[in-house]
Amino acid sequence: MSKTVAIIGGGIAGLETSIQLEKLGYDVTLYEKDKALGGHAGKWDRLFPNRRHATEVIDSLTSRIKDKVQINLAATVNQIKRENGSFLVEANGKSQKADAIVLTTGFELFPANKKEEYGYGIFENVITSAELESMFSSNGKPLMTNGNNPAKVAFIHCVGSRDEKVNRPYCSKVCCVTAVKQAIEVKEAIPTSDVYCFYMDLRMFGPGYEDLYKEAQVKGVNFIRGRLSETSEMEGGRVLIKAEDTLSSKPLKMTVDMVVLMVGMSPLPSTEKLLKDLEITPNNDGFVQVKDYHLEPTHTEADGVFVAGACTGPNNITDSVNAAHTAALEVHKYLTSE
Amino acid sequence: MSKTVAIIGGGIAGLETSIQLEKLGYDVTLYEKDKALGGHAGKWDRLFPNRRHATEVIDSLTSRIKDKVQINLAATVNQIKRENGSFLVEANGKSQKADAIVLTTGFELFPANKKEEYGYGIFENVITSAELESMFSSNGKPLMTNGNNPAKVAFIHCVGSRDEKVNRPYCSKVCCVTAVKQAIEVKEAIPTSDVYCFYMDLRMFGPGYEDLYKEAQVKGVNFIRGRLSETSEMEGGRVLIKAEDTLSSKPLKMTVDMVVLMVGMSPLPSTEKLLKDLEITPNNDGFVQVKDYHLEPTHTEADGVFVAGACTGPNNITDSVNAAHTAALEVHKYLTSE
Repeated sequence: MSKTVAIIGGGIAGLETSIQLEKLGYDVTLYEKDKALGGHAGKWDRLFPNRRHATEVIDSLTSRIKDKVQINLAATVNQIKRENGSFLVEANGKSQKADAIVLTTGFELFPANKKEEYGYGIFENVITSAELESMFSSNGKPLMTNGNNPAKVAFIHCVGSRDEKVNRPYCSKVCCVTAVKQAIEVKEAIPTSDVYCFYMDLRMFGPGYEDLYKEAQVKGVNFIRGRLSETSEMEGGRVLIKAEDTLSSKPLKMTVDMVVLMVGMSPLPSTEKLLKDLEITPNNDGFVQVKDYHLEPTHTEADGVFVAGACTGPNNITDSVNAAHTAALEVHKYLTSE
Repeated sequence: MSKTVAIIGGGIAGLETSIQLEKLGYDVTLYEKDKALGGHAGKWDRLFPNRRHATEVIDSLTSRIKDKVQINLAATVNQIKRENGSFLVEANGKSQKADAIVLTTGFELFPANKKEEYGYGIFENVITSAELESMFSSNGKPLMTNGNNPAKVAFIHCVGSRDEKVNRPYCSKVCCVTAVKQAIEVKEAIPTSDVYCFYMDLRMFGPGYEDLYKEAQVKGVNFIRGRLSETSEMEGGRVLIKAEDTLSSKPLKMTVDMVVLMVGMSPLPSTEKLLKDLEITPNNDGFVQVKDYHLEPTHTEADGVFVAGACTGPNNITDSVNAAHTAALEVHKYLTSE
């Protein structure tokens, strides 16, 4: 009898793990809490570094899912229990058996209102990077709440990252390159706009990232090494930002039309409950602790429970795709060695 | 009849790919140009972020290689030819057939003497990060050529990285965190030493990296945002370094006992020849171009030729381990779909 693997989360990591496990001959039950597959990437407009449409990636993944994957949408997994050497997964009041579990629950975007001094949710034209993506998807450009093009846009890096005050001491890894990508896109959509990136360290470490950074500089994006201290609202929905320029060590004030907060990747609160069920302790940053960072990056401390993608910590798409392959092979090894 | 996969390179990626392909039922021919397996990691003392011994990781990998992997050491692959839908791999004058190829050829450390103004190979106590690892392996601490403990050590980040002048515009991804790890190790081995890191941006983006950075600060490592312009030799083998502090915009001179150049990851020249044989064009940075950065990170444009690890660009060990799993599953898919 074919064995069944439950995959919790239908973002990039969950989709790729499903595809690979199905190919290896397993029945897969995929649980996705939203109404659509694709996770955060599915809500993005274009991806770094090559600015392809995110839908291209999601569509390619979903098209490779075949019959042996039972897809459960709008399915919140409330409990995972061990029973006679296998698992019982309960979602929306229904329980299904699984022989192994892969956690691909992903992350949540840092709730920007936790940085109260940045004015998110209070001032009209303070938005998040995710909201800017939505604007690109629907309008092809950012728009102020009054319908005007913003003439001056400030990107604030590290919102909910590298910040002890909000209990997010770690770097979210993808925000710098996303900010640079979005800054270029704003300049392209509104060529007369002035665009500023306020960064701590520019962490452009992946293939093609430095090229994007150079492109942004050529296109006239201004990079200011400094951290935002606070915002306030001015006439016409404009936003006054106060920061410190840490290159010149001078305080800096600037009035802009739009502030884009580069929100980091935070542990998903609903994952916590599942970790408790499975007796897995989270790591220092609140993400799923992997068994061996170098050698077993998709093992957890719990037998039969594997993990892939951004629920282990900030990850880009390629990281998640590769980790999903590892998880699939590790599940295969686990289920064939019994 | 079982199919054979040739794996070119016995570092982390090559070892992990061999293990996974063997488990999937393939015969593997593994070619390693050195006399020992393990690649660069095998010559390292301790690994970031948790400072475990590198041998632990290499030993674990090599112990999992079984009989169906034919290991060829000191075997330089000179040519790969296509023949009747498969490949002929020639190493040390002997040709062997393979049904698929995985390139795991890795990288070379940036040849530090190409930055002539840094004095490597000219001044006694200017060493590379790799040489510092060797000192830790053999002495447990850095030693000047006169046998003394260095009282003042400067780490220079981005040597052969982010540097158009030496045709290495990209970030090497692992040097910042390696420098911070090594700086901590110097402080621990020689508690009275003064240790300085000269960086451009501190790219501490992975799990546990920021914690290391904090640990270094607590232990008294000094971080200076600035780029080295040149070194000169002083009495007693000491080294005068000239740099610009880009936070204060002031030129800076400092005499130290030892300069450690954080050499980046460069494309391996011998890989180039194989790419020509296989009609694969390198990417902009000279590494192996992957077919689809997001979705097919281990495919090349050549049918039947796959790739994993740092020959595709700077990578850490976890990246290579995960990519190796992807490559193994992609080879499996390729060889079963024929």
